[in-house]
Order: sequence, then C-alpha cells, then structure tokens
Amino acid sequence: MTDFWVTEAMNGFGMTVQVTEELCRCQSKFQKIEVYQTVKLGRMLLLDGIIQLTEYDEFAYHEMLTHVPLFAHDSPKRLLVIGGGDGGVLREAAKHSELEVMDICEIDAEVIEIAKRFLPSISCGYDDPRVKIHIADGSEFIKDKPGYYDVIIVDSTDPGGPGTPLFGEEFYRDMKKALRPGGVIATQSESAYLLPEIVKRLYLASTQVFRSVNYASIAVPTYPTGTIGACVAGDRDDVTQIARPIPEKLSKQLRYYNSAIHQAAFANPSFVKQLLNS
Amino acid sequence: MTDFWVTEAMNGFGMTVQVTEELCRCQSKFQKIEVYQTVKLGRMLLLDGIIQLTEYDEFAYHEMLTHVPLFAHDSPKRLLVIGGGDGGVLREAAKHSELEVMDICEIDAEVIEIAKRFLPSISCGYDDPRVKIHIADGSEFIKDKPGYYDVIIVDSTDPGGPGTPLFGEEFYRDMKKALRPGGVIATQSESAYLLPEIVKRLYLASTQVFRSVNYASIAVPTYPTGTIGACVAGDRDDVTQIARPIPEKLSKQLRYYNSAIHQAAFANPSFVKQLLNS
Repeated sequence: MTDFWVTEAMNGFGMTVQVTEELCRCQSKFQKIEVYQTVKLGRMLLLDGIIQLTEYDEFAYHEMLTHVPLFAHDSPKRLLVIGGGDGGVLREAAKHSELEVMDICEIDAEVIEIAKRFLPSISCGYDDPRVKIHIADGSEFIKDKPGYYDVIIVDSTDPGGPGTPLFGEEFYRDMKKALRPGGVIATQSESAYLLPEIVKRLYLASTQVFRSVNYASIAVPTYPTGTIGACVAGDRDDVTQIARPIPEKLSKQLRYYNSAIHQAAFANPSFVKQLLNS
Repeated sequence: MTDFWVTEAMNGFGMTVQVTEELCRCQSKFQKIEVYQTVKLGRMLLLDGIIQLTEYDEFAYHEMLTHVPLFAHDSPKRLLVIGGGDGGVLREAAKHSELEVMDICEIDAEVIEIAKRFLPSISCGYDDPRVKIHIADGSEFIKDKPGYYDVIIVDSTDPGGPGTPLFGEEFYRDMKKALRPGGVIATQSESAYLLPEIVKRLYLASTQVFRSVNYASIAVPTYPTGTIGACVAGDRDDVTQIARPIPEKLSKQLRYYNSAIHQAAFANPSFVKQLLNS
C-alpha cells in the first residue's frame, strides 16, 4: 500500500502526518470521524479534519488534563468527564483508586464506538467498572447535577463543532453549580500561540466564577503549535499546587505528569501572562 | 502570486508553512540557504531544508537560549555565541548592559549576509557596537580562548550539517576550558520527543564536565514537535535558578522569558527525566 500524508492546516501553517491506511471514515450525526494508521505515530483520530490524538503523544495531553485537576483536589471522589469519548481521560482517571464515581458525558456515541473498535490503547479507559456513560450534551447534562461532583474535566473539540456550548460563560457557571465545595475543573483551552482570543475567553469565564484560576501548557507534538492548554480552576487556595502526594504506584505508570511539572505547567511565558491579565 | 506550501518532515510527520514568495535561495560553501515570505508567520529561514526560524515565533527560542544562561550567571561580562549567524541571540544579549564582550563565531559568512539583507528584525543584533564577528569553526575557535568567557551560547543547526562537531564530547570539554570560573553554557539541544538520543548525548557530555546540568524545554511552534530544548550547564550550585534580579527595563522588552519560566523550563515531563537519568 502506498503511504500518503494527512495535513491539518490553520492560520498559514499546519501539521502533516504520514499514514499507511485509512481505517475508518464516517459522518456521525455531529461530525466527520476518521482514523488512520500512521507510519511513525501509531493510530490517529481526526474529528472534522482536526487531529484529536495520535497514539504517539496522547499520553501527554491525557495525563495532564486528568492528573492536574485530580491532584489539585485533596480528596476527589466523584469525577465527571465531558467529551473525551475516545476514553483517554477515563484511562488516566482509572489510575485513581480514591474515585467512587466516574461519569462520562459524550454527545456523540459513534466516537465511543469507533474508539472502542480502532483505538483500544485509549478506549481501555471504559474497562473500569466505575465508568458510567451518558450520551448527552454536556452543557445540558450538568444542569441536573447540582453540588454533586468533585472534579469536572472537559475534553472538548475546538469551538465550531458540537463542543461549541462548552466554550461559553454560562457553561462555566453551570459547572460551578455542579461541583461540591472545594471542587476543581480543567477544560481543554487551546494554544495561546494559535487561538489567544479563546484562551482569554475561557480564562475570563473561569475567573468570574472560581477563586483560583490559571492556564497550564502541555507539550503535545501533533497539535498545531505543539502546545495545548488547560484552564484549571477551583474554589481552593491555589490550583497550581499539588494538594496531596502522588502514590508511587500511580507515578510509575505515568510518562509525562509529575509533581514538578504540575506546578511548572502554570509558569506561563510573558506573552501568555500578558494575554491573561490584559 | 500564487501561495504555496513549504514542508519540513522527519520521522513520519512534519510542519508545513504557507508562503507567498521565495526571497532567497542559494548554496553556500556549507549549506543550502532559503528565505521565504510566509502568509502568517513573517519571514522564514531554512538551512538545508530545515526551518531555523520564523519571525512569528523566533522570540521564544532566542529569548530562552540567551537569557537563561545569562541570568543563571551572577555577573556575565564576556559572551561568546557559536553559530547563531542570523543575529537573534545577539539581539537578545544586547539587552544586557553588563556585557563587555559579545563575540560571535559563525562558520558560514553567507548566513550573516543573508540575514542582514532579508531578516532585519533579527540581524539587528549585529548593530550593537560590542559585537565582534569571527568567521570560523566554533569547535576550533574556542581552543584558542582558555579561561576567557563567562557565558557560551551554542545556537547550532542539527547534527549532520556544518554544526556536527558541536555535538561531540570534545567540544564540551573545550567549552569548559574556554570559560572563566563560574561560567555557564547553553546549547541548542533538540526535542526530546523527536531526537531523544541526541538530547541524551548532549546532556551526558555536559554532565561529564560541569557540576550543575539540566535540560530546559522551550515552546516554539514552527520547530518539529513544537518544542526545542537547551542543555544549560555550569560550575555553579544550580543553573536552573536565576542568579540575579531581572532589570525591569529589560523585562519589559521580553515576550517569553521571565523568572518563573526560567525555573519551570527545567521541570521536565517524566519521560524526559527518565531519558536523562537512564
């Protein structure tokens, strides 16, 4: 079979990935879903033409988006994942034995089905018996759960697709209501190089409802600019600090997250600090 | 004029950049030199087909490679830049009024000429009267300068081209000899995602001759993987710590470097820590 290249370009530059085979291409009710076998990066998932993950570097994103909010909380029992249908956040969360509830609210059931079929190294997150799947719009789902969760993780696509309501102020107010006291959220918050206006909007939405808010950067090679961010927020003293020790057994399973990088990820370059404080 | 795309690919993935015009393409004694006008990223320089910089994000790389070693030193007077013919490191170094000597040793005079002609926002580094240009192989040049410099910055191309001797152990021993007591070096040290074996080799070469060594990551969107590293080393207590306050006047001129990111850049993801300590 002849190799070919799949390119995602935006704002005058982009990523291109060499692939050997298209494993899946379909149009769900919400979006176009593609899975490729790449030459060097394992399997790759695209939604509406945008790279969501490769098996090569998804660990960086999923570990940080999951363990930063879970270790910013001193005693998380109930977790809600919004989006994240591929299962990567669940796989990381399952490493936390202290969790009693692991709800996931994904709008597109086909993403889950395709991940289970083609991305077993990621969708294995669903194997944990604590996981309960809710097929629904996350922005509506949380309205029915006042004061219930300790941590909410939003692993969304970019604004424009089905994830658009997850980028609005109302959603941040609703997340706050869905949390128990001391709760923490982390939301996929784009690259400050590529989409500064969205980073700023999500940061502002967080600061309007939470006491401690900051933006963390994660190095993920196959996302445009090689960096993606997470807004982490909570009614705690300082979400940039780890709230409890990382168990050694868990630590040994991780390739990116550690206590030093938890804090360091929030040390933003000056142009990002200026963006957030402007 | 019709836009076209310039792609740099390695190991099954790469960067692609939309350009409007080829401003310069020539073959020097050492390498192929290209300059393009891009659509969104300002001008772009390639050496032997590898993106060296774009005007859009070069600040991140040049600020970190320059200010980290200069602020890890408590009183730098004499600076040597090896490579860096585009002038970006000199431009950043010129912001340090405490420097008395600013030598640059570039092997390829044509890189300097082309930068002066096509990249004035970067080659303005040569405007400082303290700058002295030496056209020579840096690995030979330093052998004649025992105990002379306080800081040496190596802004090299990748191994394989004319910069190859700058990736060997002997060069690190020679740099050590060229430093005054308490001296600090910083060397372009590739991405741990893309070229782990080179990161490891440069780190080991540093640890064999310097007391304090660490690897810092810098987020630069147009380098493959979006991250590049610097090995920073010196016979000091801890090069990851800033050794003196950043003057406010200097700080205001910077878009990436600040005291928090100086330290945070050395907080490596677990897979990088394992690589360095293996």
